[in-house]
Amino acid sequence: MVPHLTTSLTGPLQELERQVLAQRPQIERWLRTQWLEHEAPFYTSVDLRNSGFKLAPVDTNLFPGGFNNLNPDFLPLCVHAAMSAIQKICPDACGVMLVPENHTRNLHYLQNVAVLKRILEGAGLTVRIGSLIPGLKEPVAVETAQGDRLLLEPVQRRGNRVGVEGFDPCAVLLNNDLSAGIPAIFRGIEQPVLPPLIAGWATRRKSHHFHAYDRVAEEFARLVGIDPWVINPAFSQCGKVNFADKEGEDCLAANVEFVLGEIREKYAHYGITEQPFVIVKADAGTYGMGIMTVKGVDDVRNLNRKTRNKMSTIKDSRPVSEVIIQEGVYTFENVDGAVAEPVVYMVDQFVVGGFYRVHTERGVDENLNSPGAKFVPLAFETDCHTPDCGAQPGDPPNRFYTYGVVARLAMLAAAVEVEELVERDNAPEARAANA
Amino acid sequence: MVPHLTTSLTGPLQELERQVLAQRPQIERWLRTQWLEHEAPFYTSVDLRNSGFKLAPVDTNLFPGGFNNLNPDFLPLCVHAAMSAIQKICPDACGVMLVPENHTRNLHYLQNVAVLKRILEGAGLTVRIGSLIPGLKEPVAVETAQGDRLLLEPVQRRGNRVGVEGFDPCAVLLNNDLSAGIPAIFRGIEQPVLPPLIAGWATRRKSHHFHAYDRVAEEFARLVGIDPWVINPAFSQCGKVNFADKEGEDCLAANVEFVLGEIREKYAHYGITEQPFVIVKADAGTYGMGIMTVKGVDDVRNLNRKTRNKMSTIKDSRPVSEVIIQEGVYTFENVDGAVAEPVVYMVDQFVVGGFYRVHTERGVDENLNSPGAKFVPLAFETDCHTPDCGAQPGDPPNRFYTYGVVARLAMLAAAVEVEELVERDNAPEARAANA
Repeated sequence: MVPHLTTSLTGPLQELERQVLAQRPQIERWLRTQWLEHEAPFYTSVDLRNSGFKLAPVDTNLFPGGFNNLNPDFLPLCVHAAMSAIQKICPDACGVMLVPENHTRNLHYLQNVAVLKRILEGAGLTVRIGSLIPGLKEPVAVETAQGDRLLLEPVQRRGNRVGVEGFDPCAVLLNNDLSAGIPAIFRGIEQPVLPPLIAGWATRRKSHHFHAYDRVAEEFARLVGIDPWVINPAFSQCGKVNFADKEGEDCLAANVEFVLGEIREKYAHYGITEQPFVIVKADAGTYGMGIMTVKGVDDVRNLNRKTRNKMSTIKDSRPVSEVIIQEGVYTFENVDGAVAEPVVYMVDQFVVGGFYRVHTERGVDENLNSPGAKFVPLAFETDCHTPDCGAQPGDPPNRFYTYGVVARLAMLAAAVEVEELVERDNAPEARAANA
Repeated sequence: MVPHLTTSLTGPLQELERQVLAQRPQIERWLRTQWLEHEAPFYTSVDLRNSGFKLAPVDTNLFPGGFNNLNPDFLPLCVHAAMSAIQKICPDACGVMLVPENHTRNLHYLQNVAVLKRILEGAGLTVRIGSLIPGLKEPVAVETAQGDRLLLEPVQRRGNRVGVEGFDPCAVLLNNDLSAGIPAIFRGIEQPVLPPLIAGWATRRKSHHFHAYDRVAEEFARLVGIDPWVINPAFSQCGKVNFADKEGEDCLAANVEFVLGEIREKYAHYGITEQPFVIVKADAGTYGMGIMTVKGVDDVRNLNRKTRNKMSTIKDSRPVSEVIIQEGVYTFENVDGAVAEPVVYMVDQFVVGGFYRVHTERGVDENLNSPGAKFVPLAFETDCHTPDCGAQPGDPPNRFYTYGVVARLAMLAAAVEVEELVERDNAPEARAANA
C-alpha cells in the first residue's frame, strides 16, 4: 500500500521532483564523489516532512530503532548494504557486539534488535548482544514482540578490548544512543565503535547537524538549480535555557521571532498561505521528547507548568539547557486519514527502506514521534533508488526516489558532523580533558 | 515457486550444506578478504549442477544475458550492487556505454539489455547503447520482448576514446562476449572496458577458468573441511582437435578415459551408483554450442557426421580446435517434471538473484543450455545471502545460500583468471605482438 499525498499544492515541490528526476545521473555522481570524501555512517534513519511545497529532513538518527518496521522484503537490501559496510570496517574479522538500549520491556524495540541481528548474521557475522543494563551480572534471555529470543549479555572489559563472555568482537555496533553519557567501560577501547562514541547524544547536538546540513543543502541546491530553502528548514538555537526556572525566555522569544520571520518571508515569496510555525526542541533530545510546536512569541512567554515540565527533561532524565528552534514543516501526507510522515532507513550509503510514522491524535504541525504513533511497514512500494521513469513527478515511486535523495543529503550531513566531532575529540585540548 | 529437489540421496551434499551453514561467518570473512585482493567482475552468472552428492559450477559467464529472467523484485538488489561497482570503477563520472550482442532478432536477449539499462540507470548512470552491428551507420530503434524500446547506436571512435554520437562515456560495459574477436574500434582505448577485452571468448578459455577454480576450491575446501571434489568437477583438455577431419581423436579418447577414471574412483569412494559421464565442450565455446555428453571412449571414437558438424563450429562460426573434457555432474533437480539447473547471477561481489534453466527434452546428464530451454524467473524464493537459520540444511532457503556460496567461488576464480589474462596481455612480449 502506498499512502497518497493529500496536498493539492503544486508549487515548488513538484518543481523539486522534476529537477531531481531530470538530473538523476548528476545527483548520483555527486553523491558518489561525496562518499569518496566522507564515510557514510553504518546506519542512519531520517525523518522527513513533506508539505507539498517543501520536503525537508527534520531529524537524523544515528541509532535507528525501527528496523522491525521495514518491509521484510527489503531484508536482502539491508544485508547487502551491511556487507558493504563491514567490508570497509573490518573485512578480516567476523564477530560484532551489538549494544542495544536498556529498556527491555519495549518488545517492539527488542524486535528491532532481533532484525538488526538477523541482518548482521545475513552479512555473515557472528553477533552477540552486549548489554549496558546497570547491575546485569548474568546473561538474560528476553522475548521480542514477534517471539524471537535474544540473549542480553553483560559487557565485559578485558584490557583495551570489550566483549561478552568468551567473545572478542572486531567491532562494537551501538544501537544505544548514549543519552546517559559515554559508558566508562567503552572509554579508550581499541575496537572500532560504530557510530563513534562521540556521536552519542551525550555529545551530539541537533544544531551542529543542521549547520552541516546547511552546507550540504547549499551545495546540492547549487548542483540541481533550486532554492535550498525547499529542502532545508531554517533554524536557530539558544544555549542557556531552563524551562523549570523560566531562564532564557528572552533568547527563546527572540529566536522564535527570528525564525518565524524567515519563514514568513519565504511563504510570501512562494505565495504560501499556511500559518508559519516553529518547533522548539532539546538540542540533544531524542525519542521525541522535549519538543513543542510554537506559532508565536506568546507561546514561549507564558508556558504552563505542564509544558515546562515536559520540556525540562529528556531521555534518561537528562536536563534540557540547549534548545534548537527549527522551522516547522507541515506534513500533508496521511494514511487512512491520520497524519503521516515518511522515515527513510539507510545502511552504509544505501537506502534500504522506509515506513510512514502515523499518528491519529496529532495535527499536521505537530511532532508525530510521540506515544500512540503507529508504523505502516509496507508503505514504500518500491525501493527509493529505482524510480519508474515513465511515471509523472507526483507518482509514488518518483516521490520515493526524491525522498531517498533528501534522506541521503541528511546522512551526508551526519557524516560531516561526525567527522567534525571526532576531529574535535582528537584535538590536544580535548584529549587532555578526557585523560 | 521453488522447484523441489528430486534426489533422495543423502550423501556428501547434505554434509556440504551443513558445513557451509555452520561456518557462515568464517566463509563470509574469507570471501571479504578475497575481495580485498581480487577485483570482482562487474557481473557474472554461474551455471550450477546439483546431483545431490555434488554441487559444482559447470560454466561461468562474464557477459550474462539473462537479467530479464531474474525475479523483478530483485531489481533493487541489482541497483545497489551496480552502485557499489560504479563507485569503484568511475565514481566521478556518470555515462556508460553498454555494448550488446549483435543479434537483434532475439527479443528476449534485447529484454535482457533493457533490464541491464534499467539497472544502470537505477544506479544513477546515463546509459547509451553502442552497437557493433557491422555496417550500422545510423541509430536503429528496436522493440524488446516486453515492448521496451531501445536505441542501438553505432559505436564511434574519437582519438583514444569510444562513444556514440554526442556521448563520451566514462566506461564501456560489454554484454557482447567478443567470440568474433576483439573489435579494432576498441583496441587501445583509454576508457575502462568491463570486463576487460581480453576476457572475451576470443582469448578466454574454460580450461584456464577451471584451473583457477581448482585453486579456489582447494582453499575453500580446506577452510570448510570438505573434500574439494564435492564442489569441483574434474577436467582435462586437448589442444589440437579437428572434429571435421577427425584430428586429435587419440588425445580426446585418452583424456575422456582419464577423467572417467577419476570420477569412477570418487563414485566408488562415496558409494555412488550412477554411471560416470563427461562433457566434451569447446574450450572457447559459449551459448551452449559445441557441447556433447560422453559416457565412454567409444562415444568419441566413432562420431557420426552430424555430431562432428555440431562440434566443429561455435558462436560466430568460429572453428573449434581446443576442447575441455569436464566431469559431468548430474542434475537431479526438476521443475514440473522437467530437468532443471540453477543459474546464479551476481553484480560486483553480491548475489543478486537467480533462476532455473529448465528443459523438457533433455536428460539429467545433458547440457540444458540449448534451444527449447525455458527459464523459471521466480524460482529463488529468497536471496542467496539470507538463509533462514531455523530451517534444515535441505530446505530451499539454505540450499540457495549454499548455491550463492559456490557461485561466488566460481566468480572468485573468474576474478583471478581475468587478472592473469590482463597480466599476460600486459607482458612485454604480448604488447609487442599486439602493436
